[in-house]
Amino acid sequence: MADKKIPVRFGILGCAEIARKVCRAINLSPNSTLHAISSRSIEKAKEFVTKNGLSELVKVYSSYEEVLDDPLVDAVYVPLPTSLHLKWAVLAADKKKHVLLEKPTALNVGELDRILDACESNGVQFMDGSMWYHHPRTARMKELLSDPNIFGQVKSIYSSSSFLPPPEFFENNIRTKADLDSFGALGDAGWYCIGVILWSMNYKLPTFVKALPATIRNSNGVIMSTTATLYWEQEGVTATFYCSFLSHETMEVSVLGSKGSFHVEDLIIPYEESSASFSFTSGAAFVDLHIGWNMKEQVVRVDNELPQEAFMIKEFSKLVLGIKDSTIRPDTKWGGISRSSQVVLDAVKSSADSGFKTVYI
Amino acid sequence: MADKKIPVRFGILGCAEIARKVCRAINLSPNSTLHAISSRSIEKAKEFVTKNGLSELVKVYSSYEEVLDDPLVDAVYVPLPTSLHLKWAVLAADKKKHVLLEKPTALNVGELDRILDACESNGVQFMDGSMWYHHPRTARMKELLSDPNIFGQVKSIYSSSSFLPPPEFFENNIRTKADLDSFGALGDAGWYCIGVILWSMNYKLPTFVKALPATIRNSNGVIMSTTATLYWEQEGVTATFYCSFLSHETMEVSVLGSKGSFHVEDLIIPYEESSASFSFTSGAAFVDLHIGWNMKEQVVRVDNELPQEAFMIKEFSKLVLGIKDSTIRPDTKWGGISRSSQVVLDAVKSSADSGFKTVYI
Repeated sequence: MADKKIPVRFGILGCAEIARKVCRAINLSPNSTLHAISSRSIEKAKEFVTKNGLSELVKVYSSYEEVLDDPLVDAVYVPLPTSLHLKWAVLAADKKKHVLLEKPTALNVGELDRILDACESNGVQFMDGSMWYHHPRTARMKELLSDPNIFGQVKSIYSSSSFLPPPEFFENNIRTKADLDSFGALGDAGWYCIGVILWSMNYKLPTFVKALPATIRNSNGVIMSTTATLYWEQEGVTATFYCSFLSHETMEVSVLGSKGSFHVEDLIIPYEESSASFSFTSGAAFVDLHIGWNMKEQVVRVDNELPQEAFMIKEFSKLVLGIKDSTIRPDTKWGGISRSSQVVLDAVKSSADSGFKTVYI
Repeated sequence: MADKKIPVRFGILGCAEIARKVCRAINLSPNSTLHAISSRSIEKAKEFVTKNGLSELVKVYSSYEEVLDDPLVDAVYVPLPTSLHLKWAVLAADKKKHVLLEKPTALNVGELDRILDACESNGVQFMDGSMWYHHPRTARMKELLSDPNIFGQVKSIYSSSSFLPPPEFFENNIRTKADLDSFGALGDAGWYCIGVILWSMNYKLPTFVKALPATIRNSNGVIMSTTATLYWEQEGVTATFYCSFLSHETMEVSVLGSKGSFHVEDLIIPYEESSASFSFTSGAAFVDLHIGWNMKEQVVRVDNELPQEAFMIKEFSKLVLGIKDSTIRPDTKWGGISRSSQVVLDAVKSSADSGFKTVYI
């Protein structure tokens, strides 16, 4: 067993807004500690320390290299623009740092494969920063979904992920710049839709995907809003998702099976930090005269003692500690999950870029 | 004003299972009464009277013609197989009977147009038997949906309608027979999905529709399950629906707008007869640090003093009484709503029948 008194020491490359949330999670998780942050602007890094009330013991570096060169750093969290992921994730792995990488993981699956290869050959853990996988609600939903007597076979999936950022986002944010994050809303909000759809299908890749012409781009050609369908031929399953920077916040998922179905309104970020719900029915039918149902939806509430992002850090750190201890090898499950999402992301983008052609996978 | 002491006298053509529910609704509505029922089998008709505890005053006819020839019958409810709608709805209109027609309304929009023409030229009211339009919850949802400050513009719509009938359904039911109801699950469960999608779009027809290969047919070639997408070019809106006889009961609708969104689990038949709910958010956004929302979904509950099917009968009867009174002309809104649904139904079937081609409308 890993000595619980030596937590995983994190270094963070860059001071992106999302790093604030992950900093907090690193401090909340019982097996991790924030060791170093960095920014190309030392002022920005110092401001980050103050703004987030970080300990004076946290090292503040003015370059990402310094984080990678710090022998006390076990793992790095990389919230850099997608176009920089390949370089910095591979460099980190080569320095034997475990890699927690923001999504979308790479500009294409070829790049992601180079990152995953670097992690594998260096014996370090890889995980992407999708937090909802780690919520106990997700585990509870999976339990129901996996029970053929309760859920049957998945038949139809719908997911949405949208939010309406302030006007300055559209001027300045990396997710609106073709050279920084060419996936735009598809790689950001859409990453979650793709993830939960694949999660519902046990990460089996679809037969084909197709973006739909309801796709809006900004003047840089970056997708601000799109809809796509995914189709699994063998299972006869269709999934549809809508992702957008142009609608108010939604993060819906409906998974409909032959015997059961569930619906979640707040998948990616639960309404509350300490518990989350989903609605569920199984074996629903009309009653006599078709004037009602044999049941009402059941609201399943799952309490969680940590926020989901702290569970993510805890799971990642547990793996890192095991690897450091030589009791386990890196868990390739997480890289596999990221890779499925990236393959579908690439295919949807390719469909949108080619006049909404059907793209076989 | 119509004399409230003379309610609309209904005759029913056929003793289909759904007629039991509508009988009850006719009796519950304050402005209607059941005058006559009919079946080609007089035993079946008599059994229907007993089973439903109908008054001894209700006339029992052994042919549909007799209902149409009864001068006391003001209006007919027609729950016959779709293939018989054209003949009997036109005959009824020609006999000056107001027509409440089960869905799907016809085998194609050409047939429906002949029915609507017959109703118009005979000055009788037409309405199809979709009950959910008449629930006060629907009116409340429409109020929110129509407010640009609350809902903004519709962006994405998802709807499902499914149920799992007993094995004998697949042997005997008219909805599984190509010569009786060639639309199968698409015309039955799918009618509602198409209806609510069009309702969300103020009945504007989509630019194109496309059925998806996740389509299952029985040995007669009748659709048992399908998925389709609808697209509105000008609005950039995509809608998807799943309809099926092969999944447990679902009747979900999610309508997502730029500023608001709502979700309903039990659209077609509410869980309860006396009230119904939907969940709603407007202006939703992340809070600081992306660790929660600025709101939770609001559950809007709408009480109703009558079941929705009784509201349907009441609305239809109100129109009939007004027409009898010569205070109003037939309201063509209802025929227009049915016609939009039929046009989309035809297009989805045409797509499914042609190898899932895109069908422009």
